[in-house]
Amino acid sequence: MSNHLPTRPMLRVLAVASSLLLAAPLAAQGPVATTYRSAADRIIAAAQADSAAYNRLADMVDRFGNRLSGSASLEHAIDWIITEMRGDGLANVRGEPVMVPVWVRGEESAELIEPRRLSLPMLGLGGSIATPPEGITAEVLVVGSFDDLAAHANEARGKIVLFDVPFTSYGQTVRYRVDGAVAAARVGAVASLIRSVTPNSQRSPHTGVMAYADSVRRIPHAALTLEDAMMLHRMQDRGERIVVRLTMGAQTLPDRESRNVMGDLVGRERPDEVVVMGGHIDSWDVGQGAMDDGGGVVVAWEAVRLLKRLGLTPRRTIRVVGWVNEENGGRGGEGYFTAHQDAVDQHVLAIESDGGVFSPEGFGFRGSDSAFAIIRQIGTLLEPIGAGSITRGGGGSDIAPLMRAGVPGMGLNVDGTRYFWYHHSYGDTVDKLDPQEMARCVAAMAIMAYVVADLPGGLPRD
Amino acid sequence: MSNHLPTRPMLRVLAVASSLLLAAPLAAQGPVATTYRSAADRIIAAAQADSAAYNRLADMVDRFGNRLSGSASLEHAIDWIITEMRGDGLANVRGEPVMVPVWVRGEESAELIEPRRLSLPMLGLGGSIATPPEGITAEVLVVGSFDDLAAHANEARGKIVLFDVPFTSYGQTVRYRVDGAVAAARVGAVASLIRSVTPNSQRSPHTGVMAYADSVRRIPHAALTLEDAMMLHRMQDRGERIVVRLTMGAQTLPDRESRNVMGDLVGRERPDEVVVMGGHIDSWDVGQGAMDDGGGVVVAWEAVRLLKRLGLTPRRTIRVVGWVNEENGGRGGEGYFTAHQDAVDQHVLAIESDGGVFSPEGFGFRGSDSAFAIIRQIGTLLEPIGAGSITRGGGGSDIAPLMRAGVPGMGLNVDGTRYFWYHHSYGDTVDKLDPQEMARCVAAMAIMAYVVADLPGGLPRD
Repeated sequence: MSNHLPTRPMLRVLAVASSLLLAAPLAAQGPVATTYRSAADRIIAAAQADSAAYNRLADMVDRFGNRLSGSASLEHAIDWIITEMRGDGLANVRGEPVMVPVWVRGEESAELIEPRRLSLPMLGLGGSIATPPEGITAEVLVVGSFDDLAAHANEARGKIVLFDVPFTSYGQTVRYRVDGAVAAARVGAVASLIRSVTPNSQRSPHTGVMAYADSVRRIPHAALTLEDAMMLHRMQDRGERIVVRLTMGAQTLPDRESRNVMGDLVGRERPDEVVVMGGHIDSWDVGQGAMDDGGGVVVAWEAVRLLKRLGLTPRRTIRVVGWVNEENGGRGGEGYFTAHQDAVDQHVLAIESDGGVFSPEGFGFRGSDSAFAIIRQIGTLLEPIGAGSITRGGGGSDIAPLMRAGVPGMGLNVDGTRYFWYHHSYGDTVDKLDPQEMARCVAAMAIMAYVVADLPGGLPRD
Repeated sequence: MSNHLPTRPMLRVLAVASSLLLAAPLAAQGPVATTYRSAADRIIAAAQADSAAYNRLADMVDRFGNRLSGSASLEHAIDWIITEMRGDGLANVRGEPVMVPVWVRGEESAELIEPRRLSLPMLGLGGSIATPPEGITAEVLVVGSFDDLAAHANEARGKIVLFDVPFTSYGQTVRYRVDGAVAAARVGAVASLIRSVTPNSQRSPHTGVMAYADSVRRIPHAALTLEDAMMLHRMQDRGERIVVRLTMGAQTLPDRESRNVMGDLVGRERPDEVVVMGGHIDSWDVGQGAMDDGGGVVVAWEAVRLLKRLGLTPRRTIRVVGWVNEENGGRGGEGYFTAHQDAVDQHVLAIESDGGVFSPEGFGFRGSDSAFAIIRQIGTLLEPIGAGSITRGGGGSDIAPLMRAGVPGMGLNVDGTRYFWYHHSYGDTVDKLDPQEMARCVAAMAIMAYVVADLPGGLPRD
């Protein structure tokens, strides 16, 4: 994922949520849970009977590797998904055209020149401009925060600013990746660097998207490893002069056509009404993009395949989508919304998985209070696999345009302990995932989508 | 560390150890513990009062980086230690000449050619020969064990054998790093690869020493990452043909002179009798060699500096040594033994720290039963810092020559949870260590060395 929807706590919602917590035993006995318990148990048993989701993800990422927007590997992966989805018997399998930005990393390197020479593993940040071909060689000013930069603003001119910021939460720490170049350029820096946004490192740099501001000079922006950022900070604390040469050949090329890839399990009564679910098929250009977010696409896809195999055809259509360009543009989510604008009211629910497919814990939901009460009943069906925690707030950036238009939305919540160890790095590979945990994600997605798609009265929007 | 001394359980020893376990409360009340409790408590308080050991290690590894035998950085680090030890007021500070082997990595790379092109991060294994300049391009046979290789011996000829062996224990798994090339060459392979010897990876290769056998053709031997080894294994399981190009420019150059570096805290009554302790100052040529084993040298050194600062001068001399060439030759340990051959009987104890300076748990001891009983009494002085577990068996490869000659020996035992995550990789950097844990290692080493060096009757050898 590139970011999360901001949580906007509202007193009214909190009050309602509290009262619902008290009503939990009632929810557990609700008619929805009773009606669908048998189907849910079948889904759980079938999902856990094999390692289909893990194997399919491994097959995909071993074949195509990572899949940055604009890359050939992304298009090959989409072609393959279309072929495979058709083989699974999904209906309306297609790629819907989306124009995506094309950022190409090029050759890049960072080298410590003073106080001693050392090659520094690095990754340019997505959207960054290049340096001149000979690189930028400059003294480094290490700061620990935006406030620290402000306090040393008069020392930054002509230097490379390094933000050595320890990982607290992703939301807090990612600000330096996104906004660091603007902050550094404002005080006269010639380039900016960050400590990779991760709590754990084996001298592994982590990339991700960054932003410029129209009114501020653009400077190159890249991530060093946790280890080297800390070392440079120690050197500065010892009073040593630090000089780094940063060389980046990044380019932003003209937009190219890519696709949102999708297929349907057509509803038996109201085929025009849709529960849409999935993840994003693009990734950063390092590692395999297995956690972020090949796994999200595959568990949604496997959920639909499983329902089909079990003969569980709901009243409404379930659509699995691999959105494109979540990482550096969000064009897939916007493109899906635009292409389906006339059918937005027929989207009864949107579900996104973009936090890794580790052990599922439940879903975070945004929608009406009465819908939330129903979703919590469905949550009781997920308790046998430990995924019954239904909370307020959630979603995902690919489904955000639908949600802004009033479609109820939810995100799959998983054990996030290790997600940011590997996020946007060479370490985002399929071996970090567990076949049984992925199978439980498939079951959770399948049950949630199936029950909502089958509810006689749908999901009330209030 | 490169390896551990093999444990040789003996029934007699086990029987004695059991009886001593029953006698633990008695040991806790022993005269040694009573005599030295006040000194031990002072050492513990002083060691934990600051981050001196961490800061000194960080200073050293940030200045000089890693320190492979034969490298300039090793010699610069040794020069710096000599200057610093003199500044600390240690006596007889010196480098004792040792000829060391010189293995140079050179340029190296591995690339997957089929089924798709992908650069594979790798590290050649220490002692390996080079490939021809154009590399070796060959089909890959993936095996899961030596037995698996034997079962597929007739498929190995002309191929690159990859040992994809999951980490169980270091002792078990490291066999493929050490002996893999010989096993692969015996069945006609043209090169061999291993899955890096680690339980945890962020696509990080881990190096280490390997061996050839005189009677077997020498082939290049290198480590891939856990991630890529597993991927190649999956590809083979899917029936895909795998081709890799391995290019290595490794060279073994003529031996060079290096040094064991040491300094003394001279004993007040029997200065010729010595407790020697330390770690190895050389490291592999990646990362900072902070855990393996800069930290071992520094905690021993800081222990002696602390005793000196506290005015705790024991009856006998305590010598801190940074042995050289532990990683790929063991010449430092042998050289120390040879240089001090005439004084071996005056070495009352040898202590090595080479398992990382994480939270200390105690010491593993090899020596007489009566000495063990005394060491266990000293252990009770370490209980306030959780380092009181004294076990049978232990030592270290640098002190092995002394131990073989009858000198009692022990190794510092620490929480080893994360040691092999970083071992011999770019991730072996000082930030993985904790100043407070290192301070407790200093206290444990200082107390053990001080009390043994001060014991009126010495340590009985039986």
